[in-house]
Amino acid sequence: MALQWLCRGVGAHSGWRGCSHTAQAQLPGKLVEALQAVVGSPNVSTGLAVREQHGRDESMHRCSPPDAVVWPQDVEQVSKLAGICYHHGVPIIPFSTGTGLEGGVTAVRGGVCFNLTRMDHITALSTEDFAVTVEPGVTRKALNSYLRDTGLWFPVDPGADASLCGMAATSASGTNAVRYGTMRHNVLNLQVVLADGRVLHTAGRGRHFRKSAAGYNLTGLFVGSEGTLGLITQATLRLHASPEAMVAAVCAFPSVEAAVGCTVQVLQAGIPIARIEFLDDVMMGACNRFSGLNYTVAPTLFLEFHGTPSTVREQVRQSEEIVQLNGGSDFAWAREPEARNKLWAARHSAWYAALALRPSSKGYSTDVCVPISQLPHIVGETHRDLQESGLTGPIVGHVGDGNFHCILVHDPTDPAESQRIQEFATRLARRALALDGTCTGEHGIGLGKRHLLREEVGELGMALMQQIKTVMDPKTLMNPGKVL
Amino acid sequence: MALQWLCRGVGAHSGWRGCSHTAQAQLPGKLVEALQAVVGSPNVSTGLAVREQHGRDESMHRCSPPDAVVWPQDVEQVSKLAGICYHHGVPIIPFSTGTGLEGGVTAVRGGVCFNLTRMDHITALSTEDFAVTVEPGVTRKALNSYLRDTGLWFPVDPGADASLCGMAATSASGTNAVRYGTMRHNVLNLQVVLADGRVLHTAGRGRHFRKSAAGYNLTGLFVGSEGTLGLITQATLRLHASPEAMVAAVCAFPSVEAAVGCTVQVLQAGIPIARIEFLDDVMMGACNRFSGLNYTVAPTLFLEFHGTPSTVREQVRQSEEIVQLNGGSDFAWAREPEARNKLWAARHSAWYAALALRPSSKGYSTDVCVPISQLPHIVGETHRDLQESGLTGPIVGHVGDGNFHCILVHDPTDPAESQRIQEFATRLARRALALDGTCTGEHGIGLGKRHLLREEVGELGMALMQQIKTVMDPKTLMNPGKVL
Repeated sequence: MALQWLCRGVGAHSGWRGCSHTAQAQLPGKLVEALQAVVGSPNVSTGLAVREQHGRDESMHRCSPPDAVVWPQDVEQVSKLAGICYHHGVPIIPFSTGTGLEGGVTAVRGGVCFNLTRMDHITALSTEDFAVTVEPGVTRKALNSYLRDTGLWFPVDPGADASLCGMAATSASGTNAVRYGTMRHNVLNLQVVLADGRVLHTAGRGRHFRKSAAGYNLTGLFVGSEGTLGLITQATLRLHASPEAMVAAVCAFPSVEAAVGCTVQVLQAGIPIARIEFLDDVMMGACNRFSGLNYTVAPTLFLEFHGTPSTVREQVRQSEEIVQLNGGSDFAWAREPEARNKLWAARHSAWYAALALRPSSKGYSTDVCVPISQLPHIVGETHRDLQESGLTGPIVGHVGDGNFHCILVHDPTDPAESQRIQEFATRLARRALALDGTCTGEHGIGLGKRHLLREEVGELGMALMQQIKTVMDPKTLMNPGKVL
Repeated sequence: MALQWLCRGVGAHSGWRGCSHTAQAQLPGKLVEALQAVVGSPNVSTGLAVREQHGRDESMHRCSPPDAVVWPQDVEQVSKLAGICYHHGVPIIPFSTGTGLEGGVTAVRGGVCFNLTRMDHITALSTEDFAVTVEPGVTRKALNSYLRDTGLWFPVDPGADASLCGMAATSASGTNAVRYGTMRHNVLNLQVVLADGRVLHTAGRGRHFRKSAAGYNLTGLFVGSEGTLGLITQATLRLHASPEAMVAAVCAFPSVEAAVGCTVQVLQAGIPIARIEFLDDVMMGACNRFSGLNYTVAPTLFLEFHGTPSTVREQVRQSEEIVQLNGGSDFAWAREPEARNKLWAARHSAWYAALALRPSSKGYSTDVCVPISQLPHIVGETHRDLQESGLTGPIVGHVGDGNFHCILVHDPTDPAESQRIQEFATRLARRALALDGTCTGEHGIGLGKRHLLREEVGELGMALMQQIKTVMDPKTLMNPGKVL
């Protein structure tokens, strides 16, 4: 198991090509010519540097470059390119910002990487209907800039400025999910190019209703399929009203139990909290050092409230009472945008703060999600495990959803430590599974968690997923080696 | 087309048995004995009266009785019974409260009806995790009674006191969906018995996390599958905090446009409205007559606000301003539970109020859902169509979701009128499709809208749905003749 993510192609399906990391791309000449005929020569690259840029994401999974990278400009080109790959039996790997965390874009069986970032139009916006349609080159920050004067926004925020279509493909969520839901709740329709080039509109062409009971939920099936069922070339998303007022706060707790208990009570009180983020003492100390802050080094909650000025005041008043009941410290408030951004900057720099704990280190962020009541138990066990394993892994999480990340800081030149990290991540996932949780709340299965998915859903669940995959992708060309 | 819903079996798959409505059940004797061996003789019925009770729902679709009805007590029995039907190639039809509106339980190819109402346990409740697991015999009102002292509730409310597992199967929603989402947003896990008797846990056995990015969303695939993929024997649902305060209001508008414009502005203002229901002038007049009220006969909104006393006051203040801007009347308020219930009784008696428009009539409630901005247009067109067709069809709808129903009142002994109604319902659905909407927001496809589903999702969408059906139900035994 340990070397699975260090060696290209191990664990992948029987291969169209070998597993070695070759400097020379090995595509049939005819295939490259056919790709060039669709998008023009400048939009096809087989150069090593370009291929290597497209063979990895932000995870610790080793780079597995594709054999070629293509830059289509529209769905017709994507369809034609897919048809060519299908004809030649060559893998297809969708790529946009490359900000994934589980090796989702690595080309473990080589093939053609579809870089979709030049399809960057916002193709439809209806402010009355709270709906927008975007191509894969549109990131969440770009969309929110575009929406700035409309009174609407798209709240799903995984941290990275990811492609919205990529976020649909990976079922992204993040800090605002406790109030606004994940991508599963906010995708209304998808345009998908299947492996053979056919173009599917999961909810019917051009449709953008808020609910439906018409037939099987194909949209829901593609959200979170990690590029293994088709290429998402357009996503229609549900927008939300921009809150008139936002207030953020930080408070420290005497224990993990107290911080989690506070979270449960805030939710039980029906307070429509927008964000409620947990940082353990290690993470808080790292953030202090990295961002020059002096918050108490203790289990900490970062909170954010959205609403009108008066409803936010009410939420804050109620939350303060609950915090006090749980032994939390006084709130450190941030009401103005600048102060709020500064406060959240500490939370958002958690990744770099963790890396700064050890010079020349790399990070691997693994995530699980459990029923909220199990959080104190699993966080306690995880602390003990980190200590016993001699690993550094500050914990930060979307506690309102029971979802947390352990940012494992390691020396990339030390294979023994990498192995210990993978073993730790597997133990963490199994701990979540034993507590009725999931092995990944938002990072996805990708390359490294396929064995855990099997433990999570069982043999029958896996068999049905495999059969559904075969329906959509009979030649197993779509992002092979991922999820299943 | 016109006779499709008046004749058993028309449009169904090639039949295991004929189409006639037979007084004598036609199951092999061995099969009945095998069913009796699992659940005991008293829990198998082949009597005509019982079978007829199970052969129809609340729609105008003709009764198609199954050949036998069985009452299993637990999932093991369901699994064994399904295995027997699978072996004999006999259709399986799940049944709980029979409150569907699109003929979902009619046994168009005969077969065995599984009445699941004796599986009525609430098998798990975690108030800290906002999760509950129920069997098919548990209705939404029973669950909310059970939860009364916990501070939690399950808000999805389709009107009828339906089985929660049935609501998952049909992707139910209703009046609270604008704030709390539909069943698609509130089902965390399902236990499903497949046609061959295998037991699937869509999110893994016993799991109940709030979010996951692990593999394909099997839960989402079964929600809304209308019993065509498997029998739902347990549903794990997401609970919500009971609101501390609730206030309801009614106000009249000069036009449909004004009522819808008001709705859009309420949503754009970010007011977390719990219910916002539209009644057209015909519906409002009928409700006045039926419930002895004297509301203005005009396009009307019924609204409900949930929160703390002060946040509700704030929501009300904001909404009143928006109502005034749109020419709406002063609010008629209902703050106390009794007054609120009386106000909503008018809305909830819409069905009977509509029937009272014509003595000895029956009703058929057809539903569509469109982008909210299209509501004024489609309601106007629908009014014209009703007039030209000489039909009575008051309109009532979940306007915050763009979803509305037309309650078609007709003489059940007049086949020409029944035909005009079906033609009207098809025109209404096509009007919704032409406006980027869906042919059903919440009633489902059932028997009567299969041709419309094809128009909605296209040939490729239908082909993929059919292939997914084949994965789960290779012998086409699960509730045949529905959806596809």
